[in-house]
Amino acid sequence: MKTFLDKQNWRYATKKFDGTKVISESDLDFLKEAVRLSASSYGLQLYKVIIVENQELKAQLLPAAYGQTQITDASHLFVFASQTNIGNTEIDAYLKNASEIRELPIEALSGYGDFMKGTINPMPEDVKNIWTAKQTYLALGNLLNAAAELNIDATPMEGFNAAQFNEILGLDKLNLNAVVIAPVGYRHEEDATQHHKKVRKSNKDLFITL
Amino acid sequence: MKTFLDKQNWRYATKKFDGTKVISESDLDFLKEAVRLSASSYGLQLYKVIIVENQELKAQLLPAAYGQTQITDASHLFVFASQTNIGNTEIDAYLKNASEIRELPIEALSGYGDFMKGTINPMPEDVKNIWTAKQTYLALGNLLNAAAELNIDATPMEGFNAAQFNEILGLDKLNLNAVVIAPVGYRHEEDATQHHKKVRKSNKDLFITL
Repeated sequence: MKTFLDKQNWRYATKKFDGTKVISESDLDFLKEAVRLSASSYGLQLYKVIIVENQELKAQLLPAAYGQTQITDASHLFVFASQTNIGNTEIDAYLKNASEIRELPIEALSGYGDFMKGTINPMPEDVKNIWTAKQTYLALGNLLNAAAELNIDATPMEGFNAAQFNEILGLDKLNLNAVVIAPVGYRHEEDATQHHKKVRKSNKDLFITL
Repeated sequence: MKTFLDKQNWRYATKKFDGTKVISESDLDFLKEAVRLSASSYGLQLYKVIIVENQELKAQLLPAAYGQTQITDASHLFVFASQTNIGNTEIDAYLKNASEIRELPIEALSGYGDFMKGTINPMPEDVKNIWTAKQTYLALGNLLNAAAELNIDATPMEGFNAAQFNEILGLDKLNLNAVVIAPVGYRHEEDATQHHKKVRKSNKDLFITL
């Protein structure tokens, strides 16, 4: 049985995807569920994930990703976008959802709600945005790890113009901001980087035990 | 066989750890390797991970984490600390490591090195620090996911005073800044939150397919 470590060693940041291979619906559902179950601060999930399937839309995004052809060759493009202008609305939506899932009266959660509001609302806007952006990386990690379990390739990418992505995908008017993206699909057999040895710091360089 | 999704559904943010249970050396090695293999921007891994085993040190950290007893009850405390003042030194260290691992002359990597330097060095210090902080969340995600595979509990926590952590752990003088922490160990049977239903956004609220 393959362990988490085997899958980590299998995965790599694919440079060239096989443009002929498409992820099945069931595999896509699995990847979405992995992202959906990700941990997040207070469980608020202050982001949305845009899944671009449309080939014309991917082609429109290509120049905004500096022509990196993973955008158009991959089966699906995941765009992790943090929510902006967050405040009571998002927290109240969480409380409503929690009360339904846990079958509790919403009043039973009001203490937790007040605590979150007292912590989050006073944050300056830029601090909120940094905070929510960081959390998208946890959700991205779940995508990468779940994909590796299915022998599906995924490449985390920060090299794109977020303002242009926001405009092309209509994210601004949804109070969303593209933070990090990941084309998902299958490695091309000609992608030589799949044969490169993985470069990582040694334990000695990475860890400090106290 | 349990899938990634089963493990996600098993894990939760443990509120009360069993203070009598310690992670084995082999499990700790597995968790470290999972963190070590995490993806990072350009593969640079611009962070270190401090693993606190010493019970007195954990007790010192407790007030800096607002008295949350996961700090002292958990077997090990992982502190993800991003590197500050990054520049040519860190990039050159990566290139040296890569040349050794891939058995290439360092000159063969100079183009990639110059590209990274040209991108990273001009960033303002605060932008660099936000960038490196975000990446620690990917490494944190690997810790959470690998721990779940081993039926080990881990609680991601942002609620701590980073300046105090830096001082207590001596991180300032190592050009490190504590970003996010995770106590790791075993859930206490009395932790009622383990029985709560997981609250997550619906697919409809989380995903936008285009």
